[in-house]
Amino acid sequence: MNDEKVLFEIASELSKLCQRNIEPRILRPNSQTVIAVLEEIQALLYPDYFLGISDDNINDHVCYLERLGILYWKLTRLIHNTIADQCKPECTINLGGCKELTNSREKALSLVKELPNIKRLLNLDVEAAFRGDPAARSHDEVILAYPGFYAIFVHRIAYEFRKRGLDLLARIMSEYAHSKTGIDIHPGATIGESFFIDHGTGVVIGETTVIGNNVKVYQGVTLGALSFPKDQNGNIIKGQKRHPTIEDNVTIYAGATILGGDTVIGEGAVIGGNVWITESVPSNMKVVNKPLIEKKI
Amino acid sequence: MNDEKVLFEIASELSKLCQRNIEPRILRPNSQTVIAVLEEIQALLYPDYFLGISDDNINDHVCYLERLGILYWKLTRLIHNTIADQCKPECTINLGGCKELTNSREKALSLVKELPNIKRLLNLDVEAAFRGDPAARSHDEVILAYPGFYAIFVHRIAYEFRKRGLDLLARIMSEYAHSKTGIDIHPGATIGESFFIDHGTGVVIGETTVIGNNVKVYQGVTLGALSFPKDQNGNIIKGQKRHPTIEDNVTIYAGATILGGDTVIGEGAVIGGNVWITESVPSNMKVVNKPLIEKKI
Amino acid sequence: MNDEKVLFEIASELSKLCQRNIEPRILRPNSQTVIAVLEEIQALLYPDYFLGISDDNINDHVCYLERLGILYWKLTRLIHNTIADQCKPECTINLGGCKELTNSREKALSLVKELPNIKRLLNLDVEAAFRGDPAARSHDEVILAYPGFYAIFVHRIAYEFRKRGLDLLARIMSEYAHSKTGIDIHPGATIGESFFIDHGTGVVIGETTVIGNNVKVYQGVTLGALSFPKDQNGNIIKGQKRHPTIEDNVTIYAGATILGGDTVIGEGAVIGGNVWITESVPSNMKVVNKPLIEKKI
Amino acid sequence: MNDEKVLFEIASELSKLCQRNIEPRILRPNSQTVIAVLEEIQALLYPDYFLGISDDNINDHVCYLERLGILYWKLTRLIHNTIADQCKPECTINLGGCKELTNSREKALSLVKELPNIKRLLNLDVEAAFRGDPAARSHDEVILAYPGFYAIFVHRIAYEFRKRGLDLLARIMSEYAHSKTGIDIHPGATIGESFFIDHGTGVVIGETTVIGNNVKVYQGVTLGALSFPKDQNGNIIKGQKRHPTIEDNVTIYAGATILGGDTVIGEGAVIGGNVWITESVPSNMKVVNKPLIEKKI
Amino acid sequence: MNDEKVLFEIASELSKLCQRNIEPRILRPNSQTVIAVLEEIQALLYPDYFLGISDDNINDHVCYLERLGILYWKLTRLIHNTIADQCKPECTINLGGCKELTNSREKALSLVKELPNIKRLLNLDVEAAFRGDPAARSHDEVILAYPGFYAIFVHRIAYEFRKRGLDLLARIMSEYAHSKTGIDIHPGATIGESFFIDHGTGVVIGETTVIGNNVKVYQGVTLGALSFPKDQNGNIIKGQKRHPTIEDNVTIYAGATILGGDTVIGEGAVIGGNVWITESVPSNMKVVNKPLIEKKI
Amino acid sequence: MNDEKVLFEIASELSKLCQRNIEPRILRPNSQTVIAVLEEIQALLYPDYFLGISDDNINDHVCYLERLGILYWKLTRLIHNTIADQCKPECTINLGGCKELTNSREKALSLVKELPNIKRLLNLDVEAAFRGDPAARSHDEVILAYPGFYAIFVHRIAYEFRKRGLDLLARIMSEYAHSKTGIDIHPGATIGESFFIDHGTGVVIGETTVIGNNVKVYQGVTLGALSFPKDQNGNIIKGQKRHPTIEDNVTIYAGATILGGDTVIGEGAVIGGNVWITESVPSNMKVVNKPLIEKKI
Repeated sequence: MNDEKVLFEIASELSKLCQRNIEPRILRPNSQTVIAVLEEIQALLYPDYFLGISDDNINDHVCYLERLGILYWKLTRLIHNTIADQCKPECTINLGGCKELTNSREKALSLVKELPNIKRLLNLDVEAAFRGDPAARSHDEVILAYPGFYAIFVHRIAYEFRKRGLDLLARIMSEYAHSKTGIDIHPGATIGESFFIDHGTGVVIGETTVIGNNVKVYQGVTLGALSFPKDQNGNIIKGQKRHPTIEDNVTIYAGATILGGDTVIGEGAVIGGNVWITESVPSNMKVVNKPLIEKKI
Repeated sequence: MNDEKVLFEIASELSKLCQRNIEPRILRPNSQTVIAVLEEIQALLYPDYFLGISDDNINDHVCYLERLGILYWKLTRLIHNTIADQCKPECTINLGGCKELTNSREKALSLVKELPNIKRLLNLDVEAAFRGDPAARSHDEVILAYPGFYAIFVHRIAYEFRKRGLDLLARIMSEYAHSKTGIDIHPGATIGESFFIDHGTGVVIGETTVIGNNVKVYQGVTLGALSFPKDQNGNIIKGQKRHPTIEDNVTIYAGATILGGDTVIGEGAVIGGNVWITESVPSNMKVVNKPLIEKKI
Repeated sequence: MNDEKVLFEIASELSKLCQRNIEPRILRPNSQTVIAVLEEIQALLYPDYFLGISDDNINDHVCYLERLGILYWKLTRLIHNTIADQCKPECTINLGGCKELTNSREKALSLVKELPNIKRLLNLDVEAAFRGDPAARSHDEVILAYPGFYAIFVHRIAYEFRKRGLDLLARIMSEYAHSKTGIDIHPGATIGESFFIDHGTGVVIGETTVIGNNVKVYQGVTLGALSFPKDQNGNIIKGQKRHPTIEDNVTIYAGATILGGDTVIGEGAVIGGNVWITESVPSNMKVVNKPLIEKKI
Repeated sequence: MNDEKVLFEIASELSKLCQRNIEPRILRPNSQTVIAVLEEIQALLYPDYFLGISDDNINDHVCYLERLGILYWKLTRLIHNTIADQCKPECTINLGGCKELTNSREKALSLVKELPNIKRLLNLDVEAAFRGDPAARSHDEVILAYPGFYAIFVHRIAYEFRKRGLDLLARIMSEYAHSKTGIDIHPGATIGESFFIDHGTGVVIGETTVIGNNVKVYQGVTLGALSFPKDQNGNIIKGQKRHPTIEDNVTIYAGATILGGDTVIGEGAVIGGNVWITESVPSNMKVVNKPLIEKKI
Repeated sequence: MNDEKVLFEIASELSKLCQRNIEPRILRPNSQTVIAVLEEIQALLYPDYFLGISDDNINDHVCYLERLGILYWKLTRLIHNTIADQCKPECTINLGGCKELTNSREKALSLVKELPNIKRLLNLDVEAAFRGDPAARSHDEVILAYPGFYAIFVHRIAYEFRKRGLDLLARIMSEYAHSKTGIDIHPGATIGESFFIDHGTGVVIGETTVIGNNVKVYQGVTLGALSFPKDQNGNIIKGQKRHPTIEDNVTIYAGATILGGDTVIGEGAVIGGNVWITESVPSNMKVVNKPLIEKKI
Repeated sequence: MNDEKVLFEIASELSKLCQRNIEPRILRPNSQTVIAVLEEIQALLYPDYFLGISDDNINDHVCYLERLGILYWKLTRLIHNTIADQCKPECTINLGGCKELTNSREKALSLVKELPNIKRLLNLDVEAAFRGDPAARSHDEVILAYPGFYAIFVHRIAYEFRKRGLDLLARIMSEYAHSKTGIDIHPGATIGESFFIDHGTGVVIGETTVIGNNVKVYQGVTLGALSFPKDQNGNIIKGQKRHPTIEDNVTIYAGATILGGDTVIGEGAVIGGNVWITESVPSNMKVVNKPLIEKKI
C-alpha cells in the first residue's frame, strides 16, 4: 500500500476517534482566548508596564475606554461559549431571546466592575513583596519580574471568575500562571490582603485553602489535602474542605508541607523549611525540623 | 577607536568563535519546527480543543487530511535534517538516490500510523486524571488545564520518536513539556496505561524508569539514579538501567525520592510525602517518614 | 444604569487608579524588548541553532554585522529608558547634549564587547553538562534541550547587565529564565566556570551566592538566606552577604538546602539529597541524611 | 566626524522638521485602523467569503454579536480621534463629560445601523455585475474577484462616513479601494442602485458626480471637472458641483471622458469608447468617435 | 432604546441577510489561500528571489521537496473545496470513497507536474522583457520589478488552473495580479511565447483573446469585445469568441484599443498609440492616428 | 507511478532548472526588505502619521535615534548584498578588509544624511497638492490619502538611491509605488519642486524625463519615448535621452501623451486631455484636441 493510502486510512481512523462527524459541534472555551483576556486585564490594570508594544497613544482616554469595551464583548462571548453547551439555531436570528447570552453579559459586566477593586488589592501585594524581600530594589521590579506577584495577580482574577460559576475559565487562567511561575494556586483558594510568595517554584495551594492577611510563603510550600474521604461506593467525595487554614501574619519557609482541612496555622506562627505538618499549630509558635544529618569523609 | 570599528571587530571575533566560515553548514533540527510539529499533533488528536483559531472549517474532512499530509512532509524533512549530517550536492538533483530521505519518509509514515494508538492511550490518561483528583470538574478541564496531562501527552509522542532512533527530537519535545509544566520525563522512560501526575512541578522521571498501569504521582517526586557506574577510565558508563521500576497501582506522594536501577516499588504500594527510598518496597506496603519536628514559642 | 454607562465609570476609575492623567509619562523598560534582546544575543552566540527561522542568509557576513549593529542600537535605547526617568524636551532636538544617552551608548558598547568572552564561558558549560549527565548524547542536545544550560546562558548575560548597574534589566532576564526552566538564579550571584545544573526545577540561587568552578547542582537545591538582619527600626538591611559560598568541584544533590552568608561548602564536598545545611562543611566531606522511614502494610 | 555623530545630527534635524518636540501630540486617524475597520465590515457583510481564516466558529451567533460590539468600540475611538483635535486632561477622569466622545458614539451607532441597508444595496450590485458581464460565471466570482464590485462595496461604506461629516476617514477608505482596484471614486459621489464597473483600471468618478440606477461603466472612464472656478483672489472655490450627472440605464464604454458640473447624460444614453464629452447628451442617444486612423506598410 | 439593544437587532438582521443560520455551510475557496498558493509557486519557480525571508536553508534539497509536498496537499484541499459543494458526513470516515477528493488529487498532481514547463516559458518572457525595454538593466530587475512580468507569471499559472476546470481559482489569481499591476488578463486568454507588457497599467486582455509569439504590448491597451450577442430572450450569450487574435511579432503601443472576435492583427503589424481598431489589420502594416490637435495661446 | 514518486521527479527537475545546486548562492536584494526600508523612511519623515501602531513611545527621542541607527545598518546590508556578487569566505573573519562593505556603509550614511532635504521637498509637494485640488480638505488628507503624494514621496527616495548607483533598489521601490498607485515614475526621472499628480492611475514618466517646478499632471498621462534608436547590430541603444522635458508651471490634463527626448513643453503651457504630442510646444501655449464625435439615436 502506498504512502497516500496510509494517510487516508489514518485520517479516517482519527476522525472516528475524535468524533469529528458529529454536527453541530459543541462550544468550548478556547485557551488562547482566555489567556488573551487575562493579558488584556493585565494591560488595563498596569498600563505603564504592559501596554507598551501594542498601544499607539495611551494618553488618549478613549483608547482606554475602547479597550474596556472590547474586553466586555470578548468576555461576553467567552462566557457564553462556556455556559451554553451549543447554539440553538433560533438564537441566531433572535439574540434577545437567548437566555445564556443575557446571563453572559451580566457576568461580563460584573467582572469589569470588579477591576478597580482587584487593582487596589494588587497594590497591597506589590507593597508586601517590596517590604518582604531584601533583594527587591523597586516596585517596578516587583511588577515586572516577580513570579509571586504574577501568580497572585492571576489568582485574584481567576478567583472572581470562579465566584461567578466560571470554573473552567478560572482553571485555565490558574494553570497558565502555574506554567509560567511554577506556582499552582487553585482558583477556589481564599487569600487575604498583602500576600507574598518568594521564588515560588513548586508552591501548591489547594482548592479549599483559606489564607489571612500578611502571609508570606517561600518556594516549594504545599498547602494540601491529607486524604480524600470517599463515599460508600468508594468514590472520592468532591467539594469538602480538604486544605488548611492559614491565619494572619504567618510565614512559611521553603519546602514546608501543611496538610488537612482541619489544620489551622495560628496567627503569627512561623513554619520552618521542609517541615511536614498535619495538625494545627498555635498562634505565634515556631516549628522547625530537628537536625539529622550525617557527615563522612 | 570609534564605536563602529568595535562592532566590526566583535563581529569578526564572534564569527570565528561560531565557526561561521565553515561551508556547507551542518543540518540541525530547529527547535521551533519540533514544537510546531508537536502542536500540530495535539491539534489533530484533540481538534475540538486546539484547532480553534487557525482552522477555518474543521467539519471539512479534507482539511483533516490536508493537515495530516502536511504533517507527514514536515516530519520527513525534520527527520532528514536530524539523521543526515549534511546534504550531498548530488542529492539535490536526484532525490530518489538519497538514502536518508527514504529512511526519513519511512519513519515519518510510521509515526503518523502510530497516532490513533496514542490517542487511545491518552483517553485512558484523561479518565485517570478525572477519577484521581477531587477538584477535577470535567474531562474538558483535564484536557485544557492539567499540566500532568500535558506532560504525559508529550511523553507518549516523544517516546515514539525515540523508539525510532530520533533521540534529539524526542528530547527537544520532552524539554518543551518540562518548560511548560515543571515535569521532567525523559523520553526513554516506559510508562503504562492510565498514568496521572497531579500538580507536577518538580517531578523528575529518569531515562530508564519503568512504570506500570494506574500509577499516580504528585508534585516534586523524583524517580532517579542512585549513582553512576564508571568504567576503568573513570568515565560514566551510559545506557545502563539506573532508574527504578514502579509496578501497577502504586501511588507516590509529593516530594518522595526513589532512586536506583534495582529499586522496585511493588504493586499497590503507597510511598508517603518526602520519603527517601533507595531500596525495593514490597507490594501493597505503605512507607512514610517518622515525624520529627520541634516546636518553640 | 445601562451597560455603557458602567464602562464609562470603570474607565474613569481605573484611569485615576493608574494615574494615567500624568504627563509626560515615565519611561520604563518593556519586558518584551528585554526578552527580544536576550534572544537576539542567543542567536548571535549560537547562530547554527537559533537563527534558523528568521535568517535568510547566515553565510552572509554582513548579516552578522547588521544584527550586531541593530543589537547595539536596541541596547542603547533600552538602557536609556531604564536609567533616565523621563525625557527632557530639549534632548529631542539636541541628542548630543543628553548625558544619559552618552552613558547608555557606552554601556551598550561595553556589553557587545563582552559577548566573545561570554561565548567562551558557555562553551565550558556545555562541556560540563555533556560530561556530567550519563543521559546526554551530544553537545547539540545540551544546547537545544537542557534547561540547566539555558539558565546559565541567561545568567552569564544578566550578570553582565547587573555589573553595569542595570539591575532591573538583569532581573527581567533572570525571571524569564526562571519562568522557562524553574531555575531561579539571582543576577547578583557569582558563578565560576564549567557550571552544570541537572533537571533544575526548583533550584534557587540567591543574590550574594558565590560559586567556584566545576560545581554540579541538581533539581530543588536552594542556596538561600538564613535570616534577614534588620536595622534598629526593624527594616530589613539590604545588600549584605546572606547566601552561601560553594567552592570548586562541589556536588549538591536534589532538594538540598544550604543557607547563610557565612556558610562555606569546602572544595570537593558532596551534599546529599534533601539535606538541610546552615553551617560550613569542610573540603571533601560528604553529608547525607540519616534514613528515617517507617513501613507498614 | 564619525558615523554615529552624523546619526545624532540627522535625528535632531528630522526631529525639528517633524516638530516632534510638541506636547501633547495631536490625534490623527491611523490608516491601518481605518482599513481594518473596512475589512471587518466586509467580513460582517459577507461572512461566508471573508471570515474564513480568523473566525473559529461562525455558526456561533455570539461571535457575530461580539464582532459587531468590537466594531462599535473601534469606530467610536476612530471617530473621536478624527473629530477631536487633542485630548483634554480632564476627559481622562470624566469620560461622561467629553462631548466629542458622546458625539462619536452616536455616529458609530448610526453607522452600525446602516449596515443592513448597505448589504441590500450590494446584493443588487452583485446581480448587476453578474448580468452585465458575459465572462461572469457565478455570484461567487463577482464577490471574490471583481474589482468593480470591491470599489462599489467600499464606496457605499465611505459614502456613509462622509454623510456623517467624517470626510478624512471616507477618503482613506476610497483611496484604499483605488490602490487595490485602480478605480478612484470620491466618497462624495452619489451612486444609484445596480451599479457595475467592468475591469475598472483608470476609472475616476469625481466628488460631485451624481449617478442614477443601472449604470454600467468600463475601464478608463473619467467623470471629471471641466475647470475650477476661482474667487476674486484667484483661489479655487471648493464645494461647487463640478462633475457630471449620469441618469438611469446609461452605459459608458472604456476610456470615455465626461466633464463638467452641468453636463447631463440622459437616461439610456450610450457613450462610446474614448469619447470626450463636455456637453449634455440627450436620453437614449449614442455617441461615438469618428474613425480617424491611417495605415501604412 | 439603549446602544446594546441596537447591536442585538443589527446582529439579528445581518444574520438573516447573510443566511448565517443555514447548516451545514457551503464550502468556498478562500481568497487568501489561493494567493498563498500562488506565492508558494512563485517561490518554488524563483527560489533565489522569493524564498528569502521564510526559508531557513534552501540549499537543503529536502526543504524543496517538503514545500512541493505541502503545496500538493494545499492544492488538493483548495480544489476539493472548489469543486465539491459541501462535505457529505460519510466522507469524513471514508476518505477513499469521496470521488471529489480523488478528482482533486489528480488535478493537484497534474498542476504540480506542469511547473517545470511553466518555468521554461517564463524564462523566455524574462528574456523578452530584457531585450524589449531600453531601461532594463538586468534579468534580476525584470524578475523583481516588472509588473508586466508579474502579470504573465500569474497568467501562465491561472491559465493552467482554468484548463483543468478551476475557473474561480484562476479568476481569483488573475484579479490578484490585476490588483497589483493594473494589468487585467482573463485566465481564458491564450498567450504565446516571449510575451512582454511594458508599464502595463490599464491593459485589458479579454477571455477569448489569442496572442502569438513575441508580442509586445504597452500600457492602456485593450483587447476587448465589440458587442455582446444576445439570444432571443435578450440574454447575453456566454462562451463565444468575442476578443481579437494577435499574430506573432506584433507590437501594440500605449492606449490602443482592438475589439471584436473576428479582428485579426496580422503577423509583424504595428498598432500605434491610442488607435481604435474594430477590423482586421494585414501583416506588417503600421496603423497610427491622424494628428488632430489645435493650439492656442 | 505513485504520487510521491512524481513529487520526487518534479522536485529534481525544478532543482535543475533553478540551478539550486550551485554553491555558494549569489546575493540578491530581497524585495520585502527594500519595501520595509521604504516604509521605515516614511515613518521617520512623517512620524505622526505612520508610526502609530508599532511605536510605543514616540515622545522618546532615543526611539527616534534608535530607528535611524537600525535603518543605517539595514541599508548597509541591503546595499552590500546589491553591489557585491557574493561573499568571500575571508570577509567573514575580517570585516574591515571587505571593500564592498566600506562602500556600502558610505552609501548608507549618505542616504541617511539626505533625509532632511527630502522632507523639505515633500513639504512643498504636500502644499502643491492641497492648493491644486478643490476636493482637498486638509494637509492630513494629502499625506494620508493622495496616491500622487505617495508616488512622489517614493520617487524622491528612489531617485537618491539611483544617484548612488543603486539602480535595482530604486526600481524595486518605484515599482512598489506603481503597484499601489498605478503611477509609474522611473527612478531616473528628474522632477522639480511642488509637483502634483491628481488621481494618477496610468501615469507613466520615463527614465530620462526632466520636469521643472510647479508642474501638475492628471491621470493617464504618458511622458514616454518616441522610438528606440538602435546601433548597427539592431540592438536598442540604452542610456540616451528618450523622454520629454517639461518646463516650470506646466499643466498636463488626463490621458495626454507626450513623447520624445527632444520634445520640450515650454513654461506655463497647458496640454489638454487625451492630446498626443511628439513635438515641442512653446511657452504658455494651450494644446487641445479638435472635437470629433458623432451622435446617433
